[in-house]
Amino acid sequence: MRPARLITLTTDFGLRDWFVGTMKGVIAGIAPKARVVDITHELPAGDVLAGAFALASSARYFPKGTVHVAVVDPGVGSVRKAIAVQTADYFFVGPDNGVLALALARERVEAIRVLENKSFFLRPLSRTFHGRDVFAPVAAHLTCGTPIDKLGPAQKDFERRFLPLPKFNKSEVEGEVIYIDRFGNAITNLASELEGGLHPASCTVAGRRRFEVPVGDFYNAVPAGKAVAVFGSSGFLEIAVNQGSAQQVLGLKIGSRAYIDT
Amino acid sequence: MRPARLITLTTDFGLRDWFVGTMKGVIAGIAPKARVVDITHELPAGDVLAGAFALASSARYFPKGTVHVAVVDPGVGSVRKAIAVQTADYFFVGPDNGVLALALARERVEAIRVLENKSFFLRPLSRTFHGRDVFAPVAAHLTCGTPIDKLGPAQKDFERRFLPLPKFNKSEVEGEVIYIDRFGNAITNLASELEGGLHPASCTVAGRRRFEVPVGDFYNAVPAGKAVAVFGSSGFLEIAVNQGSAQQVLGLKIGSRAYIDT
Amino acid sequence: MRPARLITLTTDFGLRDWFVGTMKGVIAGIAPKARVVDITHELPAGDVLAGAFALASSARYFPKGTVHVAVVDPGVGSVRKAIAVQTADYFFVGPDNGVLALALARERVEAIRVLENKSFFLRPLSRTFHGRDVFAPVAAHLTCGTPIDKLGPAQKDFERRFLPLPKFNKSEVEGEVIYIDRFGNAITNLASELEGGLHPASCTVAGRRRFEVPVGDFYNAVPAGKAVAVFGSSGFLEIAVNQGSAQQVLGLKIGSRAYIDT
Repeated sequence: MRPARLITLTTDFGLRDWFVGTMKGVIAGIAPKARVVDITHELPAGDVLAGAFALASSARYFPKGTVHVAVVDPGVGSVRKAIAVQTADYFFVGPDNGVLALALARERVEAIRVLENKSFFLRPLSRTFHGRDVFAPVAAHLTCGTPIDKLGPAQKDFERRFLPLPKFNKSEVEGEVIYIDRFGNAITNLASELEGGLHPASCTVAGRRRFEVPVGDFYNAVPAGKAVAVFGSSGFLEIAVNQGSAQQVLGLKIGSRAYIDT
Repeated sequence: MRPARLITLTTDFGLRDWFVGTMKGVIAGIAPKARVVDITHELPAGDVLAGAFALASSARYFPKGTVHVAVVDPGVGSVRKAIAVQTADYFFVGPDNGVLALALARERVEAIRVLENKSFFLRPLSRTFHGRDVFAPVAAHLTCGTPIDKLGPAQKDFERRFLPLPKFNKSEVEGEVIYIDRFGNAITNLASELEGGLHPASCTVAGRRRFEVPVGDFYNAVPAGKAVAVFGSSGFLEIAVNQGSAQQVLGLKIGSRAYIDT
Repeated sequence: MRPARLITLTTDFGLRDWFVGTMKGVIAGIAPKARVVDITHELPAGDVLAGAFALASSARYFPKGTVHVAVVDPGVGSVRKAIAVQTADYFFVGPDNGVLALALARERVEAIRVLENKSFFLRPLSRTFHGRDVFAPVAAHLTCGTPIDKLGPAQKDFERRFLPLPKFNKSEVEGEVIYIDRFGNAITNLASELEGGLHPASCTVAGRRRFEVPVGDFYNAVPAGKAVAVFGSSGFLEIAVNQGSAQQVLGLKIGSRAYIDT
């Protein structure tokens, strides 16, 4: 796979400060022809799972060879490793704390390298801003054709312990809300491809109380103000309220349980 | 008109989630040389009028041939149509629910097409994210030179019923606040070109109570904390408070009335 | 120095409205090949010091020849001057109200010009949106090779009176908090290069009460919830709380004092 001259950024750095712009300055200095696309920078600070989900939901919509950078990194400066991963279709760069894991779980991994070769870092290397000093320059070098094996030693696997997986109980699958988007839609970890294809007629969610929510094809399948469960655009079952916020109306939050019959 | 390799995006998708980044990934895959400029993605969710106003205020500042995409689409997945419009200077793409109407009212419309040709959509087509699956790919194809008549059948007019228009009473024009910007400036639908040119000395606005506000050339025309009405940068009369928020100080909101003598 | 085809934008215009997108449209019309990088648009409205700090923290990470535009401009339309500045490595464009001053203090200034040549402005020139009508087009013309001396008459110095400088007392340096980032880190005006290099073991900050905070190499140098002072990625001493907000935990705000022994 040849790298594309395209880098995506997924971080919790926010847009209020100068962090993201600075990363783009570093990239422009190393790879003047690379384009940068923001996935999001408004992840809740330190929320690795939200970052993993945002990256996994968007990565596959980019052209082959895109370099995806994700930095949600509460352990910056301490022991966690930084990695670059080459898959059949993409490159991924970030801390090895799980933020890359959901996206990588959907790809065919070909190589994992620990970022130890400091000749690809910015100098001096700060202790607090590896987005600028490590991840941005490494991504820029990858778009310029630097082979991934120049970046550091090989590693066998990536961190994936934190991922909340659905539980298969006797006659039901138990999932949970792992992301709430700006519209208040509560997205669960119940993927449509589970068990060779889920086709539930309804879903029970444990919010302020237990609600039974019909599964529909789109938000407007129910009257305004009513709840509906939809296999959303990211491929996961999401609980929505037509023209409203499921988060508010049903009292859902990250970790709220969702059950479907099997 | 030849299309420019430039696409603008105006949506209510927010910057917190991965929606906008994903649209850009789709565009990059179809039209690698197209540039994307964000107008705004922080429109109030479902606020078609705010989207229409943001687009109308910015569209004409772009080079000829730019493809303007606006997606505020509370009816996604239901019956509303999706359209592409070619004017003398631009292309416009979005749902036909009024979000394009204010901008189109300032242009010379040459063709309107209903987006029905699925060969220009992403597959599989989701029910909930036409920004990614319909509008982004169609816009990308337009920048590559796809003629608008390939996109679907012709349509005679675009949806414009929702537009709040000023009322011409006996000795006054009655307008209303249609947009409040981040500084708290309350922008009315009273355009400077109304009736061949408005030159009022003052304006009466109905906020917390009725206020008579002098018309000035700029915010600093009045002391700090005082209200002033200015024909703002978008060409509409806006109510401002110098170094303050008209929204807060005067208690203005969307729909608040504004009167000027004729 | 040849200009790069790269423009950065630092403003308080926000991302909610159409202001920033419109500036980019103007730039695209004048300089189709110029790229635009956002530093931030979410500065507190009218906060010149925050803008100055964001620009100073990021400008040097961009390639030589970059045109940096900063617009925090509460005096737009009144008497303040607009300037362009050429330094050994960059161009800077903005109102001469101090927003450029912190960045310029780190550069070798070669020329300062007052923006008076209206042939480089947009017409008609609005009174309220010089970001679009003055600063964006001037920056675009600079990237196209327009010499800075075409823009207007020379000026000897730039506005710098507002800058809060550390005070050198008998046995201590007294600094103050000049910026609080989204993580709640409180950044002081105590630069690591002060007096040929500061190496304090601790720092006393006056928040809700007086706290003595150890100086560490990174946030994780102290247990979660504990305060630490770090010479951060911008080169200034910042007060942080590991996995928390120093602003909230210690009650810090802009102007809070910070003392280190000399």
